[in-house]
Amino acid sequence: MIYLDHAAATPLSEKAKTAMLPFFSDQFFNPSSAYLPAVAVRKLYEQAKSDIAHVIGAKGVDLVMTSGATESINLAFLLLEDLDAEVLISATEHPAVLENARRYKNHQIVAVDTNGCLDLDDFTKKLTKNTQFISVCLASSELGAIQPISDLSRLVAKERERRALNGEKTPLYFHCDASQGIGFLGVKINRLGVDLLTLNGAKLYGPKGIGALYVGHNVKLKAQVLGGGQEMGLRSGTENVPAVVAFAAAIKEAEDHLASEQKRLAKLKQQLRSDLADLPGIKFLGNPKHQLVNFLPISLPGLDAERLIFMLEEREVYLSTGAACSASKGIKSPSLQAIGLSDSEIAGSLRLTLGRLNDSENLKQASFHLHAVVAEESARLTKTSPSPPALLDSPKTARLVSPQSPQKLPPEVEQ
Amino acid sequence: MIYLDHAAATPLSEKAKTAMLPFFSDQFFNPSSAYLPAVAVRKLYEQAKSDIAHVIGAKGVDLVMTSGATESINLAFLLLEDLDAEVLISATEHPAVLENARRYKNHQIVAVDTNGCLDLDDFTKKLTKNTQFISVCLASSELGAIQPISDLSRLVAKERERRALNGEKTPLYFHCDASQGIGFLGVKINRLGVDLLTLNGAKLYGPKGIGALYVGHNVKLKAQVLGGGQEMGLRSGTENVPAVVAFAAAIKEAEDHLASEQKRLAKLKQQLRSDLADLPGIKFLGNPKHQLVNFLPISLPGLDAERLIFMLEEREVYLSTGAACSASKGIKSPSLQAIGLSDSEIAGSLRLTLGRLNDSENLKQASFHLHAVVAEESARLTKTSPSPPALLDSPKTARLVSPQSPQKLPPEVEQ
Repeated sequence: MIYLDHAAATPLSEKAKTAMLPFFSDQFFNPSSAYLPAVAVRKLYEQAKSDIAHVIGAKGVDLVMTSGATESINLAFLLLEDLDAEVLISATEHPAVLENARRYKNHQIVAVDTNGCLDLDDFTKKLTKNTQFISVCLASSELGAIQPISDLSRLVAKERERRALNGEKTPLYFHCDASQGIGFLGVKINRLGVDLLTLNGAKLYGPKGIGALYVGHNVKLKAQVLGGGQEMGLRSGTENVPAVVAFAAAIKEAEDHLASEQKRLAKLKQQLRSDLADLPGIKFLGNPKHQLVNFLPISLPGLDAERLIFMLEEREVYLSTGAACSASKGIKSPSLQAIGLSDSEIAGSLRLTLGRLNDSENLKQASFHLHAVVAEESARLTKTSPSPPALLDSPKTARLVSPQSPQKLPPEVEQ
Repeated sequence: MIYLDHAAATPLSEKAKTAMLPFFSDQFFNPSSAYLPAVAVRKLYEQAKSDIAHVIGAKGVDLVMTSGATESINLAFLLLEDLDAEVLISATEHPAVLENARRYKNHQIVAVDTNGCLDLDDFTKKLTKNTQFISVCLASSELGAIQPISDLSRLVAKERERRALNGEKTPLYFHCDASQGIGFLGVKINRLGVDLLTLNGAKLYGPKGIGALYVGHNVKLKAQVLGGGQEMGLRSGTENVPAVVAFAAAIKEAEDHLASEQKRLAKLKQQLRSDLADLPGIKFLGNPKHQLVNFLPISLPGLDAERLIFMLEEREVYLSTGAACSASKGIKSPSLQAIGLSDSEIAGSLRLTLGRLNDSENLKQASFHLHAVVAEESARLTKTSPSPPALLDSPKTARLVSPQSPQKLPPEVEQ
């Protein structure tokens, strides 16, 4: 298997699994129970929350634990009860942000440039005295484009000052969906300057079904889930202790190896990028300078990305067209439209996202297989012979292993 | 350890754990991804949903998977957008039901009898032509009182017929919170006759953080969580595949051993009940005929249950005063008030709930320790010597192991 879809899902790290397992058996107690072993579980739960918060420079009490990024985003939007409120989001948000924003008739979408990075001029223009809520991702899930959150925060702070000076009472909240990017970028709340930050366990080798919402001290959230009053009354329900403990282990591990993994992935991405550069008509999407180090989105105009994915699947190479969420529904990606791609470029776009399951060797194989299926598909389209001898004889691919050679899974990077 | 708090939390069964583990590593894929291994995960996920649904006589598509019972209950209540709607709940509901009902100014609480069972006359009186939503638990979490859901369904059906005949358009929905009871009662949707049913993984030896809401074909729910459109658009967010697979394994296991475990627990409960019968002033709460087989709620009027819990904790005997959720907050239990207990009876009430961590031997020990702490506490209160020789010499306790002897954990019942 060659896995190139780390932005869609990551396996649970061994460290996270080891941290989690005792909480299924010996430490299974309900953290709300009064007796000692349950109180001990409560303490470990709070410690895990502190550990997660520490990575972003916050405290455990600043986090509301949720069942994942989507729930966190929904919880953040609940701040805005007034459906007439003005809302600003970027053009490359996850469906959870987009669908929530659409509930407000006065929502506006801020343009992005051809790299998928937010257009600060358009943002400045659209940030009015009535704007109440802004939601911009840390990095987009289709292009990996890193958004200028700190710059936006400064503009938000300026607007707040202006309102304060004028005695205007309209509140202004800034939410950032950091589902993609934590573990690849050093994320600190005071540097980002946001009021609300969404975290996701499943994207950083933690378990599925766990997320968090950082809530700044100036923010008074409304409860999304009513009941026993857990998570400061904002999100009732028995705490998912094993998942939170595993999330903490995973985010700490990612933080501990941030620099080395960034370096390793940057090298791997560069290798894959140059190996793919001779694919006919290939367009690399986004600007690597403003892109997550593990994202390599490409377009092969004239080819059908869905077909390529199924051809690659036969070769045990796995990747996506866009964000996995919308990919399965055949919706044309709003993000790819927003960066100005033509229909043919969108139809031929693939999202390669690297991670711990990759190494130099399996990326060489990935390149070999991509060349092979592109050649095959191009040949089919031009109705010539499917055999692509020129490609196989090229100096770049000649040294690659054949598709018949065993494709062993590299060990997970757990050092 | 002697664990008598199975209604608060259960350890994950070995079968459920074994079923879950592969989905953390080899089968970690996002079920929304297009390639074969992800599609295989999607199929196993849907199969797990079918398996869960099958236990209650429903189909996988009838279930919305959630992060637990509390979320399921909140999702069910979302049917009712009109805060003026008339809502009926019983007097022994979980805080999640109570807190949701409180949002509607026209909510009414149906009385229960001294056993905690719903008063059908009061229900009939309070079910009016304007009632839109009814929520009654399958069994209450403090007393284990089994509610007459089928009888209520017949009354609901009659009221619906009446409305139809009169051309009245007011809808009427019936939700049942079955968090407690599945695994001890055979629960089938067509026999219960409810429109909505809440299930909880964590109470039946499945993982924490997973639940489901059964949604009848006549019900059109509103989405609680917006985003990628998972769970038929009702509950977005990447599916928590490992937890759902484990939930399925746990509920199937409980169903497979339903009859034998019922029998085993009934015998154990009878043993413990007769062993405790000579505790001074003891009152057994509820009627065993209408009570979950694993519930043994008692009251020791004049004693402080909280103190007893801490004294028992030192002897490694773990139990609760009421539902764990509210116990830690020191709220006087509404359920215990509803069955007409005096303040002194409420203050002295303990909830013993049996399960797989119990056997005849450790329940004998539990009885020994309960007798010892009650004697000690009574002695303290009457300012006599704390040594209770009469008790230790009694034929009932003489054969028990001393509290100093090793208290080994019995093996989990997994046969």
